[in-house]
Amino acid sequence: MRYSKLFGKTIKTPPADAINRSHILLYQAGFIRESTAGRYFFLPLGQLVQQKIMAMIKKEMDKSGAQEMLSPVLHPLELWRETNRTNTTGFELTKVVDRRKGEFALGGTAEEMFVDVVRKLRLSYRDLPLNIYQFSLKFRDELRARGGLLRVREFIMKDAYSFDKDETSFKISYDLMAKTYKKIFDRLSLKTVVVESDNGYIGGEYCHEFVVESPIGETKFLTTPDGNYAAHEEVAVFYKEPQNIKDELKPLKEVQAIRETTMEDGVKLHKLPLWQQIKDVLFVDNQDRYILAIIRGDFDVNEIKLKHQVNAITLRHATDQEIREKLHSEPGFISPVKIKDLINTKIKLIIVADDSLRTIKNAYGGANKKNLDHLNMNIDRDYKADIQADIALAKHGYLTKNTKQTLVAKRGIEVGNIFQLGYHYSKKMKDANFTDQDGQLKPYYMGCYGIGIGRTMAAIVEIHNDKNGIIWPQNIAPYQIHLIGLDLQNESVKKQAEKIYANLLEKGIEVLFDDRVDVRPGHKFAEADLIGVPWRMLVSAKTGNNVELKKRTETKAQVMSLEEALNLILD
Amino acid sequence: MRYSKLFGKTIKTPPADAINRSHILLYQAGFIRESTAGRYFFLPLGQLVQQKIMAMIKKEMDKSGAQEMLSPVLHPLELWRETNRTNTTGFELTKVVDRRKGEFALGGTAEEMFVDVVRKLRLSYRDLPLNIYQFSLKFRDELRARGGLLRVREFIMKDAYSFDKDETSFKISYDLMAKTYKKIFDRLSLKTVVVESDNGYIGGEYCHEFVVESPIGETKFLTTPDGNYAAHEEVAVFYKEPQNIKDELKPLKEVQAIRETTMEDGVKLHKLPLWQQIKDVLFVDNQDRYILAIIRGDFDVNEIKLKHQVNAITLRHATDQEIREKLHSEPGFISPVKIKDLINTKIKLIIVADDSLRTIKNAYGGANKKNLDHLNMNIDRDYKADIQADIALAKHGYLTKNTKQTLVAKRGIEVGNIFQLGYHYSKKMKDANFTDQDGQLKPYYMGCYGIGIGRTMAAIVEIHNDKNGIIWPQNIAPYQIHLIGLDLQNESVKKQAEKIYANLLEKGIEVLFDDRVDVRPGHKFAEADLIGVPWRMLVSAKTGNNVELKKRTETKAQVMSLEEALNLILD
Repeated sequence: MRYSKLFGKTIKTPPADAINRSHILLYQAGFIRESTAGRYFFLPLGQLVQQKIMAMIKKEMDKSGAQEMLSPVLHPLELWRETNRTNTTGFELTKVVDRRKGEFALGGTAEEMFVDVVRKLRLSYRDLPLNIYQFSLKFRDELRARGGLLRVREFIMKDAYSFDKDETSFKISYDLMAKTYKKIFDRLSLKTVVVESDNGYIGGEYCHEFVVESPIGETKFLTTPDGNYAAHEEVAVFYKEPQNIKDELKPLKEVQAIRETTMEDGVKLHKLPLWQQIKDVLFVDNQDRYILAIIRGDFDVNEIKLKHQVNAITLRHATDQEIREKLHSEPGFISPVKIKDLINTKIKLIIVADDSLRTIKNAYGGANKKNLDHLNMNIDRDYKADIQADIALAKHGYLTKNTKQTLVAKRGIEVGNIFQLGYHYSKKMKDANFTDQDGQLKPYYMGCYGIGIGRTMAAIVEIHNDKNGIIWPQNIAPYQIHLIGLDLQNESVKKQAEKIYANLLEKGIEVLFDDRVDVRPGHKFAEADLIGVPWRMLVSAKTGNNVELKKRTETKAQVMSLEEALNLILD
Repeated sequence: MRYSKLFGKTIKTPPADAINRSHILLYQAGFIRESTAGRYFFLPLGQLVQQKIMAMIKKEMDKSGAQEMLSPVLHPLELWRETNRTNTTGFELTKVVDRRKGEFALGGTAEEMFVDVVRKLRLSYRDLPLNIYQFSLKFRDELRARGGLLRVREFIMKDAYSFDKDETSFKISYDLMAKTYKKIFDRLSLKTVVVESDNGYIGGEYCHEFVVESPIGETKFLTTPDGNYAAHEEVAVFYKEPQNIKDELKPLKEVQAIRETTMEDGVKLHKLPLWQQIKDVLFVDNQDRYILAIIRGDFDVNEIKLKHQVNAITLRHATDQEIREKLHSEPGFISPVKIKDLINTKIKLIIVADDSLRTIKNAYGGANKKNLDHLNMNIDRDYKADIQADIALAKHGYLTKNTKQTLVAKRGIEVGNIFQLGYHYSKKMKDANFTDQDGQLKPYYMGCYGIGIGRTMAAIVEIHNDKNGIIWPQNIAPYQIHLIGLDLQNESVKKQAEKIYANLLEKGIEVLFDDRVDVRPGHKFAEADLIGVPWRMLVSAKTGNNVELKKRTETKAQVMSLEEALNLILD
């Protein structure tokens, strides 16, 4: 490709709102342009990289035995109604109505579609395990699209769906995908942390994100120095060290408490440790149920864990007004003690206690009235929880469950995820069955596996760049050689440069040829560094019959024959 | 690929509503399944073929110097408002509103998007000519989707857009695309007729469809025996042979005419030839204007030609009630003579006369009253037309303009189209300019070029099949070899078949291996014929160390060594 004709050249000014390196570099180097917020044009350079990433992923997916197909992106809404996804999806549903009043969803993921095509084909146990995948457009009605390709509203995703006869077989399929993903990201020069994550469907251990560590990533996870444990903040667990657990139970007391409403105000007033205080957080869920989460004062509530405990789709904090009018309690003074006696029987209140409340004795906190506190609250004796479970948020510095290591909080970019769907879809959708060896119809045990292509591209740029620009790994670089012609007003140099260009093309080498006559050398070099092709080859009045070769990652260039250069490049 | 594991096997029953061969075969052979009407799943076999077609197109497009990129499919509606396409598009617009009230159109074609990205990049004359293209999903809200992949609501299209500095340069770009398309379809084993077609934008000669002749095609075109002329029915022209052109003008007469309302009733009553009668057809356009089309009785009105003459977006036939109440005329008795005197001045009536009315004298027809006819109507003397032009529909058997050949009516499948957009988009959209050599900003002269991938696939199947199934051209076949193992319960035969399968895979040959043990030979052969892989290779108890090779197009099989077979196949 002649750079003079390339659609999408480098530009000096970065995009107005850009913070991330990948956003700035992909824009400046001419790989992408924004259409509307979160929807991107891939310019020719960007599309080349995107295609190479997809080809790489396809190769590994095919090797694993998965089969590529393609489903429509307009999903009939009746399928989503079968699984109740019209109500439960985390990403906002974008509905499309055609002129025959047909209702569709713009696909955000394609579980229902793949179950639908699989049930059309009426498989038997002989066809299983089955893993089918596609590269297809996905739509997410994100409220805030930001960070260039990191969080967008329309993107290509490789989404795969596995169908197994049972959980045992599924686990093998899942492990195979985990290995395949590892290989894919290795080949894409991305070091990924495999992070346990939230499986909204059925819980369980088969749910992981592949995360590229990066300070600008939106994924928060906790890991250990030895790397043997890594879990998304949403699901991470930790050791809740017992405190005054050997103390005698003291009698429950109500005391006057002229204080403000924060935890610190309680600590100051009673001169007792934060961990001994009960933290009460009141939520309202999508069914208008009140959820009172209680936890040791030095811990925070993890809303995801809490959601799963009460089977809520959404949770929001209750307002002060609701605390007063519905619970007849007081903001900053809520207490689990006898709170159910205060409320109208029509109001549904669920008390969820974190298990950390069993690691303390004689806790203090509010008494459901302004300026009134309890001392010596003890679980079971003074209050009961409807649910006792782990609803605590893990943090940097906490101990691992086995107490042997300290958790380290990190951030990263989620480039892929794999997770267990179990029977979630196949039991909700009619006829999502296979004929087993015994002649019985049985539902599929499913899993799903996604990789966002654009985000992967951005992650590669976040990791592989320097102050001058992008440094593409050779196997996904848009071109292998950035051939720069200097002194091209000199006819014989021009001839030589054109000859080398033709020669490289003939050899099937992907080459970007800066054939512009009126651009000064420094500018050409800066552009080459910005674009980030792995090898820079120079032809000028000085190089004669040779070329000057420089690796993008190195500073020194060497003059050598074209043959020697190609030996190095193709090595 | 092992056939035992292939997702999408052959099936005996054809789809309920299928008529076309391609629909039936692609379904039965396991290439496609319908999601909802007009939206298809491409099963692994279908996706393989689709990808090969795209790769072939990409190769030729790239060779022509076009550059691949990718645009979002949700087009901001504000862009469509810039060009007024929200009102004028031929295909129904499907609007999508996101939760921030952003309005989008589901892209049917992407002119605005490409102009938008080009203007963002602020090009100069040095960057031109430019041709950028994409393979991307397109959406058409077709009222009737039918014929499998031939008319669908969601499909992948290769759409290209050219940007030139002026019409002269554009013509070179256009001719290059015409040649590229010819090569593409040749390589896809499709014989295409290049058919002049309607350019809704600016008229002119730069608008062609690439049509594969087929009786089930929806494109009607007229051509000559020598093939030098081929034009879509919408634009085809013909020689309107003069009739009684030398007759004296006779005086206009009103005569009683007790007759029904058809043209034949007129012929019977007056015992005069059909061609001497005036045919009057009244239309109403999108601006509620009345358009009276008049033409020689033996010809029919071509609504597309008529639309262009009056610049209408839509036309519909006027109702009998409108003829009576608005025109104060009578159905079956309309006449151009003094009709404008009858109507209210608020009503806009445009009389469009076909130029064939100059090829007859002393015409007869209605007189705007029931049972009253005119005799001896003559244009200019008795009535005037607001517009005189060619608005006649060409038909089979008519003479070409030069009178040397007879038109032949044919049908075909439109697989591609190329057409001139001129300044249509670049002048309507702000800043769609390049900097010319003289420093002036000038609008782009544009063209656009489309190929529907799924329809191309269907056309290939329509042309390349026999009673037993599909016959894929080798270069786009999903696999090169259909390896059939027989007698696989015999351990040594099984070993031999597996060895050959592994050997072929190792050589990088695409092979579909029917490794099923319990399926009888006849059934395996029938499935192979249905799927249509070019070469069938057989390993059985009889073949020993050899294989039996058969071409899909031939009936005789030959036993030979694997090496000999590969020599034939890779030849």
